[in-house]
Amino acid sequence: MNHPAIAAALLLATTAVAPAVAQRPAPPVPARVDPAVARLRDAALEDTLAYDIVEGLTTEIGQRLAATEAEARARTWAVARLKALGFRNVRIETFRMPVWLRGEERAEVISPFPQKLQLVALGNSGATPAEGLTAPVTVFRTYGDLANAPAGSLKGRIAYVGNAMEPTQDGSSYGSNGAARFVGPALAASKGALAVVIRSIGTDAHRNPHTGGTNWPPGVQPIPAAALSVSDALLLERMADRGKPITLHLTLTPRFAGEGESGNVIAEVPGTDPRAGIVLIGGHLDSWDLGTGAIDDGAGVAITTAAAKRLLDGPRPRRTIRVVWFGAEEPGGYGGIDYARVHGRERHATAQESDFGADRVWRFEVNLPDSAKAVADRLQSALAPLGISRGAGIGGDGTDVGPTIALGVGSVDLNQSGLRYFDTHHTPDDTLERIDPAQLRQNVAAWTAMLAVVANASEDIGNVTPRK
Amino acid sequence: MNHPAIAAALLLATTAVAPAVAQRPAPPVPARVDPAVARLRDAALEDTLAYDIVEGLTTEIGQRLAATEAEARARTWAVARLKALGFRNVRIETFRMPVWLRGEERAEVISPFPQKLQLVALGNSGATPAEGLTAPVTVFRTYGDLANAPAGSLKGRIAYVGNAMEPTQDGSSYGSNGAARFVGPALAASKGALAVVIRSIGTDAHRNPHTGGTNWPPGVQPIPAAALSVSDALLLERMADRGKPITLHLTLTPRFAGEGESGNVIAEVPGTDPRAGIVLIGGHLDSWDLGTGAIDDGAGVAITTAAAKRLLDGPRPRRTIRVVWFGAEEPGGYGGIDYARVHGRERHATAQESDFGADRVWRFEVNLPDSAKAVADRLQSALAPLGISRGAGIGGDGTDVGPTIALGVGSVDLNQSGLRYFDTHHTPDDTLERIDPAQLRQNVAAWTAMLAVVANASEDIGNVTPRK
Repeated sequence: MNHPAIAAALLLATTAVAPAVAQRPAPPVPARVDPAVARLRDAALEDTLAYDIVEGLTTEIGQRLAATEAEARARTWAVARLKALGFRNVRIETFRMPVWLRGEERAEVISPFPQKLQLVALGNSGATPAEGLTAPVTVFRTYGDLANAPAGSLKGRIAYVGNAMEPTQDGSSYGSNGAARFVGPALAASKGALAVVIRSIGTDAHRNPHTGGTNWPPGVQPIPAAALSVSDALLLERMADRGKPITLHLTLTPRFAGEGESGNVIAEVPGTDPRAGIVLIGGHLDSWDLGTGAIDDGAGVAITTAAAKRLLDGPRPRRTIRVVWFGAEEPGGYGGIDYARVHGRERHATAQESDFGADRVWRFEVNLPDSAKAVADRLQSALAPLGISRGAGIGGDGTDVGPTIALGVGSVDLNQSGLRYFDTHHTPDDTLERIDPAQLRQNVAAWTAMLAVVANASEDIGNVTPRK
Repeated sequence: MNHPAIAAALLLATTAVAPAVAQRPAPPVPARVDPAVARLRDAALEDTLAYDIVEGLTTEIGQRLAATEAEARARTWAVARLKALGFRNVRIETFRMPVWLRGEERAEVISPFPQKLQLVALGNSGATPAEGLTAPVTVFRTYGDLANAPAGSLKGRIAYVGNAMEPTQDGSSYGSNGAARFVGPALAASKGALAVVIRSIGTDAHRNPHTGGTNWPPGVQPIPAAALSVSDALLLERMADRGKPITLHLTLTPRFAGEGESGNVIAEVPGTDPRAGIVLIGGHLDSWDLGTGAIDDGAGVAITTAAAKRLLDGPRPRRTIRVVWFGAEEPGGYGGIDYARVHGRERHATAQESDFGADRVWRFEVNLPDSAKAVADRLQSALAPLGISRGAGIGGDGTDVGPTIALGVGSVDLNQSGLRYFDTHHTPDDTLERIDPAQLRQNVAAWTAMLAVVANASEDIGNVTPRK
């Protein structure tokens, strides 16, 4: 999971929007669950395919940084796997994008207390000279403190920007704390900073730094920008508490490497009624380059593929289910943008993605046209036995499906618990061991039930007004 | 905490010895707790000094690898702190020792599934050529499998040695799984291996590799030896499960850097009766070079110093309490050996150390002469309110006090819970955040109560037979 876009949406969702958008109260009499839907759902609780996929992807490929040879190998792997599973129309759709590659990354406090610090460059970071740079540090405990710093006040200095992110079920603390990463470096650059180090946008207190993209508005020259592990950030703050000036030596040598190729991998479960619209699902195939991309987002492609496979193995659904393993989500959602460019004119019924780890789905939220209100009621009944409640917000979240949703396509969001997600998100520790197989199976069951209801709904599912 | 020595002792303790050594049943009527002891103990549950010390040491010094400039800075810091606290006879006693320094460390699977692996060199590891070496891997799931490999069978190969360490309250799984690190590399070398990578001796499944010393018997030429993080080891084992040959590229450039200086920092609470023998307590000041040495062993020096300070601030105890912040424990217990060389002829009543993290003390075990049996009974009553029970084994554990204990000195072991200790032991993640302040305070209370009982005991505490 990337992202400023989501973050901004979450920021909105936590303020004014959520209470205001309740669609309607739940119906007093629950909708009947089609026994075929219930059977598919319950069988999916015994799923092994999703785990096999994420185990395979992390073991046989590992990290899959966008537009690199590793991501290309992953696409080849995906095509072979999807064809072997019997999916139809399996293909790769490539696109071009800018490439950013990590280099060396080291930091040490020179004074007052010499110590090495663990950090990683942020995606799109600029570089220091090869021999590094040495500069005094200005410590901002929050992004707000940085925002209040006078123009020019960071000239010749390294800005440190803290945060106090706590775990939240809905992930909203990512939005409310993430500014330090999304826009902090550019803001510091605008005030003259030589470089920026932030406290990782994460909810742990361990030694694994969290990478992630940062954004440079047009005209802003990228400066070196890195994330300290939360533990190292707390260490630096304790040094600052002692009131003595801090000098840091920082070496970051990432580089922009021109244009490269990424791509989306597409597979289908053909439907019987081409005019009923496509149900678009998926996750992203690329990952950051530190871990092996298990929770971000091996789990997402695994969950959605395993659910689609259950429909593939039964009677043909009314609607075509299209599974996309999106490329290059992390550096800026390039796969989702390219998908909408190529396929935006095809009729889609709904679009939704899984990109928030592998923990249990706890809530669903929809954006469906009036003609399909009964679909949401049936979803409510079908998902309730999995412990999934219906939320009052408007669905339609996700970096990869976002550009398609923006065209007016409906959505059924299956929200996963975010309580553990940001402990290891974007760190070297995003590996297979972070996946709880039981929770992963619950996800497959939720997506299977969702597909069984939505892909077979007899109602028309036409366009909607996208949430703001 | 280092140590093959403890590990071997634990191996014994978990097999035949423990049940056989029960000293005697607990007395039917609990010994009375001196109200002064109870007051000291209970006040120590509000201690802040121990946390201040470990916070200071990790913030102002950080890693303190033996015989390096950082360890020397730590000794200077310790002397200043101990003098400021009012301890008497504060001094440094230096000694010489061989120095080993970490270099670069990188590994990547070349085939069948190209991936980088996270690993760290083991202490005393040999080096690869600067450009690394590439060799096929033989996978041994256990040390026993390695032991069964035919002579010469590892010629030209890298040996991987796994383990299946689980957490144990008493830390005994360190002994039963640690052979892969303590002696595995030497054994693999004897069978012709070019290099060894082990699964970290640890109980987590995260991405932080666990370093620690390995031993080369006289005449065995050190080979490159490293520990993969548990997560990376599991990855390598999953690759091996696929049955294809694995080739690894390994770069490790540590070096032996001749002799250097380390030292013990000593401080005292003078007693009123010089003939009653010294009560020796402490932990070790040095740490491995990856983390900041919070649980290993900033906590140990902090706990014992904070407890001694409580006695320092009251009426003079009968016996002198000597607090030692031992140097160079990790690479081979050099500080403890030097202490016994210099001070072994002085009369010691008991010797005990804190070197197992900062979690709660759950048990105590003693080795005391018959003349001091009542002391153990009073300890039992004084420690019971802290949730500490009396164990049936013979006390006298610890790398640093070991050489002194071997001379016939008694001991009161305060055993800490090992359930979390090996999650982060010897990893970059051994930082201040691993310390639970409430559990740390319980340790201070336990040591305070122990000192109040033992240092003031009116009984004679003469020599004992050391446990085997």
